[in-house]
Amino acid sequence: MEAMPTVSIVGASGYSGAELYSLLSSHFSIRVGKLFANTSAGKHFHEVFPRFSPKFATSKSPLFEQYSSDAACSSEIVFIALPSGEAMRIVPELLQRGKRIIDLGGDFRLKNVSVYEQYYKHQHSSPALLNQAVYGLPEWNREAIRKAKLVANPGCYPTSALLPLLPLLKEKVIRDDGIAISSLSGVSGAGRSASADLSFAEINESVKAYKVGVHQHTPEIKSVLSELAGRAITCSFVPHLLPITRGIYTSIYAPLAQEVTPERVDEIYKSYYAREPFIRFSANDIPEIKHVTNTNVLDIGFRIDGENKMLIILSALDNLIKGAAGQAVQNMNLMLGFSETEGLL
Amino acid sequence: MEAMPTVSIVGASGYSGAELYSLLSSHFSIRVGKLFANTSAGKHFHEVFPRFSPKFATSKSPLFEQYSSDAACSSEIVFIALPSGEAMRIVPELLQRGKRIIDLGGDFRLKNVSVYEQYYKHQHSSPALLNQAVYGLPEWNREAIRKAKLVANPGCYPTSALLPLLPLLKEKVIRDDGIAISSLSGVSGAGRSASADLSFAEINESVKAYKVGVHQHTPEIKSVLSELAGRAITCSFVPHLLPITRGIYTSIYAPLAQEVTPERVDEIYKSYYAREPFIRFSANDIPEIKHVTNTNVLDIGFRIDGENKMLIILSALDNLIKGAAGQAVQNMNLMLGFSETEGLL
Amino acid sequence: MEAMPTVSIVGASGYSGAELYSLLSSHFSIRVGKLFANTSAGKHFHEVFPRFSPKFATSKSPLFEQYSSDAACSSEIVFIALPSGEAMRIVPELLQRGKRIIDLGGDFRLKNVSVYEQYYKHQHSSPALLNQAVYGLPEWNREAIRKAKLVANPGCYPTSALLPLLPLLKEKVIRDDGIAISSLSGVSGAGRSASADLSFAEINESVKAYKVGVHQHTPEIKSVLSELAGRAITCSFVPHLLPITRGIYTSIYAPLAQEVTPERVDEIYKSYYAREPFIRFSANDIPEIKHVTNTNVLDIGFRIDGENKMLIILSALDNLIKGAAGQAVQNMNLMLGFSETEGLL
Amino acid sequence: MEAMPTVSIVGASGYSGAELYSLLSSHFSIRVGKLFANTSAGKHFHEVFPRFSPKFATSKSPLFEQYSSDAACSSEIVFIALPSGEAMRIVPELLQRGKRIIDLGGDFRLKNVSVYEQYYKHQHSSPALLNQAVYGLPEWNREAIRKAKLVANPGCYPTSALLPLLPLLKEKVIRDDGIAISSLSGVSGAGRSASADLSFAEINESVKAYKVGVHQHTPEIKSVLSELAGRAITCSFVPHLLPITRGIYTSIYAPLAQEVTPERVDEIYKSYYAREPFIRFSANDIPEIKHVTNTNVLDIGFRIDGENKMLIILSALDNLIKGAAGQAVQNMNLMLGFSETEGLL
Repeated sequence: MEAMPTVSIVGASGYSGAELYSLLSSHFSIRVGKLFANTSAGKHFHEVFPRFSPKFATSKSPLFEQYSSDAACSSEIVFIALPSGEAMRIVPELLQRGKRIIDLGGDFRLKNVSVYEQYYKHQHSSPALLNQAVYGLPEWNREAIRKAKLVANPGCYPTSALLPLLPLLKEKVIRDDGIAISSLSGVSGAGRSASADLSFAEINESVKAYKVGVHQHTPEIKSVLSELAGRAITCSFVPHLLPITRGIYTSIYAPLAQEVTPERVDEIYKSYYAREPFIRFSANDIPEIKHVTNTNVLDIGFRIDGENKMLIILSALDNLIKGAAGQAVQNMNLMLGFSETEGLL
Repeated sequence: MEAMPTVSIVGASGYSGAELYSLLSSHFSIRVGKLFANTSAGKHFHEVFPRFSPKFATSKSPLFEQYSSDAACSSEIVFIALPSGEAMRIVPELLQRGKRIIDLGGDFRLKNVSVYEQYYKHQHSSPALLNQAVYGLPEWNREAIRKAKLVANPGCYPTSALLPLLPLLKEKVIRDDGIAISSLSGVSGAGRSASADLSFAEINESVKAYKVGVHQHTPEIKSVLSELAGRAITCSFVPHLLPITRGIYTSIYAPLAQEVTPERVDEIYKSYYAREPFIRFSANDIPEIKHVTNTNVLDIGFRIDGENKMLIILSALDNLIKGAAGQAVQNMNLMLGFSETEGLL
Repeated sequence: MEAMPTVSIVGASGYSGAELYSLLSSHFSIRVGKLFANTSAGKHFHEVFPRFSPKFATSKSPLFEQYSSDAACSSEIVFIALPSGEAMRIVPELLQRGKRIIDLGGDFRLKNVSVYEQYYKHQHSSPALLNQAVYGLPEWNREAIRKAKLVANPGCYPTSALLPLLPLLKEKVIRDDGIAISSLSGVSGAGRSASADLSFAEINESVKAYKVGVHQHTPEIKSVLSELAGRAITCSFVPHLLPITRGIYTSIYAPLAQEVTPERVDEIYKSYYAREPFIRFSANDIPEIKHVTNTNVLDIGFRIDGENKMLIILSALDNLIKGAAGQAVQNMNLMLGFSETEGLL
Repeated sequence: MEAMPTVSIVGASGYSGAELYSLLSSHFSIRVGKLFANTSAGKHFHEVFPRFSPKFATSKSPLFEQYSSDAACSSEIVFIALPSGEAMRIVPELLQRGKRIIDLGGDFRLKNVSVYEQYYKHQHSSPALLNQAVYGLPEWNREAIRKAKLVANPGCYPTSALLPLLPLLKEKVIRDDGIAISSLSGVSGAGRSASADLSFAEINESVKAYKVGVHQHTPEIKSVLSELAGRAITCSFVPHLLPITRGIYTSIYAPLAQEVTPERVDEIYKSYYAREPFIRFSANDIPEIKHVTNTNVLDIGFRIDGENKMLIILSALDNLIKGAAGQAVQNMNLMLGFSETEGLL
């Protein structure tokens, strides 16, 4: 019997890293190797996330370790869940040593280094790798992901916007410009950090838009839409912060390029997504975040406003699963030749 | 010394009615007469809203009474805070008996009876009054409100969309079509009613769009925009329900009709709203609901997305105050010749 | 190969019923038979709980059916998740027809019919069965549950109080009277019902104690404590309603019967619960609801206040799992001879 | 006409400081002088708290300034809303220069310096002032407060426990020991600070007890109970953190010293509090936080558990008002000879 592949996580003590560990530890076909987390090194996983406290002394939860490339190289696949700007420092060596990488951060999602530097506000130390990275949206890049050495796992907001928009752009039902993407996110999307702005007393009973026009997911959405549609697509993206812990709700206002019926839109989604295990769509139902929480599912609904020549598309996902760790496992399943849904149902 | 005018509230045991009573009871220039609430008749106000429990037995809170037009006619102004379809049954007699009315519901906000019946799903029993009613948006209808017999107090969502849009439409900075209005509302906007869908366990940790394209505030927004702009305006309106109690956050995506600078937009708002006591706008700051909670203020912010030729406008208000009871008091102040801000600062 | 046992749920469209279906449908050793829910009869499960919407038309979620004893009798075990007063009407026939029953409601938890009628405010139609019912607290009644025909699954509050208290009463570390149990519950504990008092706008940003001294779980706690301790135990129980969806947090103030060290308390818990798969205890850590949400785990922590001669015990559980559906599955596992943790890890 | 007294706030950019400014700025008989806030010095008040953004450029909100004793001495009364350990450094000079002080922090609430140092975990630099400070609980210390130079404004938790307990201890209805105080607090009680533990994602959908037995309000409660009751009182105090922004709910379990009727308890509260403007009590109603939010009111309810010989007392207050800034204004009113309710209704 062949040994099971081993995978490791760099940055395992953040929300995405912990969700990833949680998913991977109940995956039957891989073994979790190292959990790297520099600030928590020396602690057990359950000391940082007590909900994982083991019942028996003999089944201790794993240790967080200080990152070292040697230790990371004991794994076949290395997941990286670090703040942007940090993955780029460790990826080159890991690639050189033959490791395959799934980066949950933003360092390798854009092809254009100057756009990266404009939005992420720091230099890119490995611009040569940008073209090598495969954008890890399985529904649209499945074949490339299977063979990829370096997968850039999509952002949470982009996942919620790209999947509903792409079939409609492909079929030219909607126009290439004038699209408005209005996204609402729970607070876990901002990561596990100390900030007075994210404190309960500041977030509760309020809502705000933020980084309007300058959020780093804006160029990600535009460039992937344009690349996959095969022509320049422009859109406005406005993220909002909500008093919920998990979930993204995205409302898209897309000017129609032609008259269209609900049946036609439904048919288009069917032709692209009928066999996709993690995309549900409906011509009748309107998505709600609670229908997708704790799942890898993206829900899509829509309405046509004929008078205003507008297609209104609504989507919902769990930002930590389909928007991060779940999609990363989906990518891993492709890379290792497993069933795409393994560990995700 | 002249006697102070007396005002009454029909439907005083709902959220808007109670907020109205709270505002009116600390207004120095009027006297609160009758509080009508058929389902709570016979109870004291504080028995339904214990936060108003008086300290001393001698200062009992007022009684809810069964509605009668005779009792209502002891007041100069009658506020109506009833579900749609109910105001139209009592307004004709009150008008005939010389009372002035501020209706916080939707019965008299539309001019077109067939549009009313399409969106409100019941017949209108007093269509002749639709043209007589004055739309109670003080910043745009001040003179008509002063003399009005019947004021239709604007809806909460429309207030949040109309005030930011109107100056830009007047100045033809934005196009007349293709506008998208994405609104987020707290649960108190749905009123004080028993519904499994509004229970905490259903609302918390979730978000949903609802009544997409069929919400009764859609024709209100369109018709008032068109009337005040002086030409047909089309827009799409999508309301969303959020896990907060109070507040509306509206994000508007308006295609630009011309190139424009932030300075120009700021100047336009200044020229329309600089002296408005309840509208704050800023070229820099992004509104947040918590900045306006428990106030009669509407906050406006904006960003220009030149590449996508889109003006992004953000507004926030308290749905029970500027979106309902506060605006009603503002209208009353105009009708009775008081300072517009009395009882609202 | 023997056929897998079939189980059915009566009252499957409430929160506990749905949680139960969710747990049972991923249990490898049983087959879910009928889902009875009179008000939702004819609908598919996912029409009421869209998060269970199937991806493919061929994998439809099950139908809710009108209850009939004939249909129920096609199962080996019948779970009942009905409001109190309803189970007692169907249990006698099911027992007579040889079915084994796990009742998640309160109808068979008390032995004393007059206490039942005092607290539940209606007559008991099958008082003879009260003595036959086995109280389904696996950690204390394991052997009786294995053979039981009728299991009364414990209440959510009682589970959170009984498990921490019983070892200390057994060892006479705490006094038999003067115990105060202060419990905080999420709103899902009140069930899935239309009530203005449970609406988000009423619950959010508030807390209240309710049914102080008259909650129906009061006699359940007292009678089980007394029965299992072997002598009369008195305590005061105060439930509070919190703005969270799931979870119970119970703080117990138990007067000490003797001087005691933390080591001794820890040792007592160890001697009773070291091998219990679903009870975690710690002399250092303080429980938090989020550590147990979506699990069948009860967490216990404690502190000794020597000066006030008080043992302070804190516990946390998920009211829908260890407080209802999870414990019911634990009982089913015992009744059917499966591993107690199957379907619950 | 005499000039209005001027008051200043040191630490005006925290939650309590801002609430205090908000209350004071609508107080008719004083003038707000300086707002000191070292970390926000140079900013206007509304830049830190945008809800106070002025409408007109001419009515700028006040500036935060760097603290200096010279600047502070331009006021008659200096409010201090600093973290514990900081007030003690500036109080001696201010007293020496003849200023009267209301300290909202914990530095002068305890008489015993070694207890202070044990619970606050730092040395006290002005122990000689501890005996000079007057505990600012107006309902019990009114005369001393009127003349006080240095008022120690009570903690939020202690206010919620002392006011309900003191009349019952005075009348010896409850025992002097075995009292359990279980308090639930909103997150604003922890102040306006950057902490991963207070982030929305950590607090939402959870509850935890914290600092069990070691919270710094424990000795405050015990010492004030003992001093005002005139004999040693012992109690256990457990604070819990809840997902709400404002409010404290305290459930007290007090062993009865004698048999008592609800009428007798009601009568006792009446005899102590009937004329207190900010205390409401009821033999029937159970307090809820939402009934007191944004008010200076403390609500008290109770139930007698005769079988367990326990008096159960429930109280609710707004931690930023009756638990901090409102009570501070109440104290100021006494010190300056104003009506005690001025600025607080």
